[in-house]
Amino acid sequence: MKPIRAALVGVGAMNRIVAGLLPEKGVEIVGAVGRSKAGQDLGEVLELGHRLGISVTTDAGAMYASARPDIALVATSSFMTGQYAVLADCARHGVNAITIGEELLHPWHTAPERTRELDALARRHGVTLAGGGFQDFFLVHQLAGMLGTMNRLDRLSGQQTFNVDDYGAEVARDQQVGAGVADFARWRQSDERPPGFGLPILAAIAAASDLTVTGTGFEIRPEVAERATPCRSLGITVGPGDLIGFTTVDTVTTEEGPVLVMELSGRIYQPGETDRFAWTASGDPDVRVVNPGVDTLRTTCTQMVNRIPDVINAAPGFVGPAGLPPLRYRARPFAEYLLERPRLAVN
Amino acid sequence: MKPIRAALVGVGAMNRIVAGLLPEKGVEIVGAVGRSKAGQDLGEVLELGHRLGISVTTDAGAMYASARPDIALVATSSFMTGQYAVLADCARHGVNAITIGEELLHPWHTAPERTRELDALARRHGVTLAGGGFQDFFLVHQLAGMLGTMNRLDRLSGQQTFNVDDYGAEVARDQQVGAGVADFARWRQSDERPPGFGLPILAAIAAASDLTVTGTGFEIRPEVAERATPCRSLGITVGPGDLIGFTTVDTVTTEEGPVLVMELSGRIYQPGETDRFAWTASGDPDVRVVNPGVDTLRTTCTQMVNRIPDVINAAPGFVGPAGLPPLRYRARPFAEYLLERPRLAVN
Repeated sequence: MKPIRAALVGVGAMNRIVAGLLPEKGVEIVGAVGRSKAGQDLGEVLELGHRLGISVTTDAGAMYASARPDIALVATSSFMTGQYAVLADCARHGVNAITIGEELLHPWHTAPERTRELDALARRHGVTLAGGGFQDFFLVHQLAGMLGTMNRLDRLSGQQTFNVDDYGAEVARDQQVGAGVADFARWRQSDERPPGFGLPILAAIAAASDLTVTGTGFEIRPEVAERATPCRSLGITVGPGDLIGFTTVDTVTTEEGPVLVMELSGRIYQPGETDRFAWTASGDPDVRVVNPGVDTLRTTCTQMVNRIPDVINAAPGFVGPAGLPPLRYRARPFAEYLLERPRLAVN
Repeated sequence: MKPIRAALVGVGAMNRIVAGLLPEKGVEIVGAVGRSKAGQDLGEVLELGHRLGISVTTDAGAMYASARPDIALVATSSFMTGQYAVLADCARHGVNAITIGEELLHPWHTAPERTRELDALARRHGVTLAGGGFQDFFLVHQLAGMLGTMNRLDRLSGQQTFNVDDYGAEVARDQQVGAGVADFARWRQSDERPPGFGLPILAAIAAASDLTVTGTGFEIRPEVAERATPCRSLGITVGPGDLIGFTTVDTVTTEEGPVLVMELSGRIYQPGETDRFAWTASGDPDVRVVNPGVDTLRTTCTQMVNRIPDVINAAPGFVGPAGLPPLRYRARPFAEYLLERPRLAVN
C-alpha cells in the first residue's frame, strides 16, 4: 500500500507539530511551502537533526506540479483573506487541502462569495478543500451531538480560552498583542478588522443541527496586561495597560428558536493558566460538557492530521466539519482508510 | 405529512417520560404493552387526566397487527434474556424497534448467538432493531469522537454513577437492592448473574473506533447502606449493611493496543447526590470529558425518542449506536426527517 503524500503549507508553530505526527500514520511529507524559511532544508526547519532533502519553497504551484501531493496541510493564516489564494492554488493543481484557518471552519456566513468560488473550483478540479482543527470535534461534533440528546434547546452558551502565544506570530498579531487601548479602539471600528472566530463555530454547530441562521451579533473587548508580560511568539514584552489579546462574544439566532452564544478569549496566559472550555445547553433537559485541561494547541494539530483520510475520501467541493462524518480513532496507517472508488467531479 | 405511529412496550418509569415527549415531535402513540397495567386506559396509566382510548395490553402481537405502529419503543428489562422475545416479536410483525435495555446497546459480545438471530430476523422482515438510550451520545459517540482527536490512545478510563431508584422496580431488583451481603456473594458466583452494563458500552466504543476486542475483564463489588435507606421503586427500606446497589469494573483489551476500562456504580443515591460522569483518555495527548450534572434518566428517554427517525431510516438488521450516525438536534416534526427511499431487505 502506497503511503499518502502530504505537503506542508506553512512551516510555523503548528505545522512543526503536524510534521512530527505524520510518519507513524504512514503519511510522507513530499513538499513544504514557507515564506521566512524559503530555501532551507525542511529537516533543519523542523529541527530534526538531519536533512530531509526537501527544500522549503515560496512557489507552491511548482512544488505541487513536481511533488504531486495527495493533500496539502495548511497552517498559515486565520482568515479567508489570507487563505483564498492558497486554497485556490491547491484546487487548480488537483491537490486536496485541509486548513486550520479559523474562519475556514464554516465561512459561508463571513465570506459567502469566496466560499462559493472555492467550492466551485474544488468541484471543477475534483478535489476537496476542507476546514478543520480544534473546533472539529470539541466544538462542532461534540456540541452538535450533545444537542441531539435534548428534547428542546433554548440556548447554547460557551466560554472558551486559548493562549495566543502558542499559535505563532501570525495569530498573536491578529489578536492585537502589544497594541495600545486607543489603537485597539480604532482598529475595532475599522474595516480591516477581520471576522471573529466565534461566528464560524456557531454557524457550523447550527448547520450540523439543522438550524437556520437568521441573525448574528458581535461584541469585542480588550484584554490588557496588569504587569509587563512577555510574548514569546512576537519577541516583545507587553507593557501594563497594553493588549495581551481580546475577548469576543458572538451570538447567532435561528429561525427554529434556539440562540447560540460563544465567548472566546484569546490572550497571553498568566503562568499556570490552562485552556478553559465549558459549554451549557439550556432547555429540556439542560446538558453540559467540560473538557478539563484539553491541550488546544496539540489537538488542533492531531485533528487536522486525523482528518486526512476523510478529506481525501470526501466528495469534491468545499466542506467543513459539519459536512464530514465525526472524527474517529485511527490505529492503522491512514492509507488503509482510503476508499477505493474513484471520486467523481460534480461540476 | 402523516405522523409517525409508535407503540410503547413497557409502561413503567421510563416510557411514562417518553410518552410526554412524543406529541410535540409529531409522533402518535397507537398502542401500549404492559403486564401490571393491562386493561387500563393508557391515559390513566400515564396520569394524563384524560383517557386516550388505548387499552394497555399483554398481547403485543395482536396490537402490532391491528394498530400497525412504525416503531416500538421498548423499556422493559435490561438484558437479552428478557428482550429477545420482545424484539423478535416486533420483527415478525414488521415493526421497527428501539430498546433502552443496557445489554442491547452492543450485545455482540455478551449474547452473540441471540444477536445474530435478531439481526437475521430483522433483515428477513425488512425492519431495524436498535439499541440506544443514555449511552448513545454520552458514551458511544461522545467518547469515540473524543478518541478521534488523539494521535495515540493508550487507555480510556471512565467513572459513572446512576441512581438505581430512578429507573423503576426492574432495574432496582437487577441491581440487587435490599439483598444481604451473603446473598450478594452467592449471586455473584451464580450463573443467574447477568452481564454487567459496562462491557456493551466499551465494546460499542471499540466498534465505533475500529478497535478489535481481544479480551474482557470484570469485577463487581457491593455498595452497602450506611443507614436505613428508603427505595421508592421497590417500596422498601434497605437496612444498614444491606445492598443499595453495586459497582462493576469492566475492562476490554484490543488487538491494536488501547485498553478500555469503565467503573459503573448503580446505587440508591444519598440526598443531594447527582450523577457522576467523567472520562479520561490517556495517550498523545490526554483528553478528558465531564458532563456535569447530566440528567441520566431524562437523557435516556430523550435519546430513545430522538433516535426514532434514524431507526426507521436505517438499513434492516440489528444495530446499536456504533452503527448509526450521531444523534442530531431535531427542531421539526420527526416525519420530516424520514427518507423517502424504500428500504431494501438484505436477506
